[in-house]
Amino acid sequence: MAGPVIIELPRIKELVKGIDTVRAIEEGFVAYSQGKVIVPPVGEMHFEDPPGEVHIKYGAIVPDDYYVIKLASGFAENPSKHGIPRLQGMMLMFNQKTGQAVAILLDQGYLTNVRTAAAGAVVAKYLAPKKVHRIGVLGVGMQGHMQVEFLKGVVDCNDVIAWAPSSNGTDKYRADLEAQGFKVETTQDVNKVAATCNLIITSTPSRKPLLDVDQIRPGTHITAMGSDTPPKIELAPGIVAKADIVVADSIPQSKLRGEISQAVRAGVFNDETVVELGNVIMNPELRRQSDAQITIADLTGVAVQDIQISKAVYHAAT
Amino acid sequence: MAGPVIIELPRIKELVKGIDTVRAIEEGFVAYSQGKVIVPPVGEMHFEDPPGEVHIKYGAIVPDDYYVIKLASGFAENPSKHGIPRLQGMMLMFNQKTGQAVAILLDQGYLTNVRTAAAGAVVAKYLAPKKVHRIGVLGVGMQGHMQVEFLKGVVDCNDVIAWAPSSNGTDKYRADLEAQGFKVETTQDVNKVAATCNLIITSTPSRKPLLDVDQIRPGTHITAMGSDTPPKIELAPGIVAKADIVVADSIPQSKLRGEISQAVRAGVFNDETVVELGNVIMNPELRRQSDAQITIADLTGVAVQDIQISKAVYHAAT
Repeated sequence: MAGPVIIELPRIKELVKGIDTVRAIEEGFVAYSQGKVIVPPVGEMHFEDPPGEVHIKYGAIVPDDYYVIKLASGFAENPSKHGIPRLQGMMLMFNQKTGQAVAILLDQGYLTNVRTAAAGAVVAKYLAPKKVHRIGVLGVGMQGHMQVEFLKGVVDCNDVIAWAPSSNGTDKYRADLEAQGFKVETTQDVNKVAATCNLIITSTPSRKPLLDVDQIRPGTHITAMGSDTPPKIELAPGIVAKADIVVADSIPQSKLRGEISQAVRAGVFNDETVVELGNVIMNPELRRQSDAQITIADLTGVAVQDIQISKAVYHAAT
Repeated sequence: MAGPVIIELPRIKELVKGIDTVRAIEEGFVAYSQGKVIVPPVGEMHFEDPPGEVHIKYGAIVPDDYYVIKLASGFAENPSKHGIPRLQGMMLMFNQKTGQAVAILLDQGYLTNVRTAAAGAVVAKYLAPKKVHRIGVLGVGMQGHMQVEFLKGVVDCNDVIAWAPSSNGTDKYRADLEAQGFKVETTQDVNKVAATCNLIITSTPSRKPLLDVDQIRPGTHITAMGSDTPPKIELAPGIVAKADIVVADSIPQSKLRGEISQAVRAGVFNDETVVELGNVIMNPELRRQSDAQITIADLTGVAVQDIQISKAVYHAAT
């Protein structure tokens, strides 16, 4: 009996270049909103010395050929003490009919970045204004970079302005994206982003709002993906309340964390109007209806994205 | 950066031969009873067509070099439909200081059998009468075999009688153990086991008691390891009540499943007197004090066994 295929990071990076990630992730969100996805509670384990946490996320589309288990960890002292990334991880695929291991993707967290960036592209495809004048990004980290990279082929705009709280990392950010054909300006003035961009991506770990309600102009789409735990927030709650369309990748998760939960907690927003991304993909009536609307997509990350990206990499490899 | 070591089943089987499994598992039980082991709740996922279940068991001794995640599944139709084992699985070891994957043991469930059999040997080492006249086994499955095999070096007796409800599998059972130097009789009369053996191992999936209280003679030790879910039972509750010493691998687990929980539910046993195996190993006063005592060890399986067996295999391999 053949054992699982083992695929290491360099090969995974090569394979991802040939994958239609937007389509894979889109199909995942549709299955999720159709109620076809099993997502058990996340498994967790914590260590104190040094501080570290382990997450086990798993699930399956039913019926499907596979189920996927993602093992991920974050040890904050890794970069300073060992010169290795804080995040580590792998994704494992199993046969849904037999339980046999099919593939082990030793991606070291890379595929989580890919599936998160691809979700941003899915959102832009269905919610961004027809003509994007300029792409604005808050945060110049890995996602601030990848979210822009993954907009290629979805949004016809190569003009980018990125905000960061200091000049830390902005030179590298600009150089990396310019090498990929984008025209990039960086700034420490968030007003410049709000005033010139009609597609804004927030990708910071901020714990206080970075954008205020008066800054957001009609016709703007915002993809908020930095806030993934309850204390994090990037948008003033009034922005969520003001938006014409508010989309969540997962409605149950949006009640616990992310911008939607923050706006509800602030008492300015009733989340009954929130629509789920999978339904937006299926139903054109739920998408942007005019170039004057303000739309927000609040992404907290769903296990079905891990399932879909694993399958896509495996299929590309075999 | 080096990726994880990947060790496949044939190599694992070779490595296990050179490991002191009894010592590895013994040290695990001691750490467990000392409160040094993190064991988060088991993760579960169920499928209906075909019926299958997935278990994720994980934990760590703290402090230690590693943490271990075991991914296991059971798909009942595997043997008949696909000619492959019902149980599938692997164990993964990670660095407890960084989260980096250290080893992937593609053991297909074999190491779970090993760590379970080794626990039986640990129990026999501390609780069996000084002179074992005959080893009795209920059940001729994988554990009925391995429990006996792992007694080598712990118990000086090669005379075995095994009970099974039918002659199904008894020929193979006898031949396999005789090839390893045991003298083996098989029977469908459980009385013959109780009347001639002072070390009895129960390893069946029975849902009604197989041994009755009057059958158990003074000086008998029973290792009950078949009952691992709430409906399963192998010993009449009166046996647990009559025993001089009742040991559980995990006291919290013994309240939920296994013979102890059955005897408590039957209203004949107060589990305040139960002692935990790790404490028996540490404290000679908690062990058998005479050759006339009846002792019972109720094994339900603890994640620390997976941790210890993984580490032992990894160390033997590197």
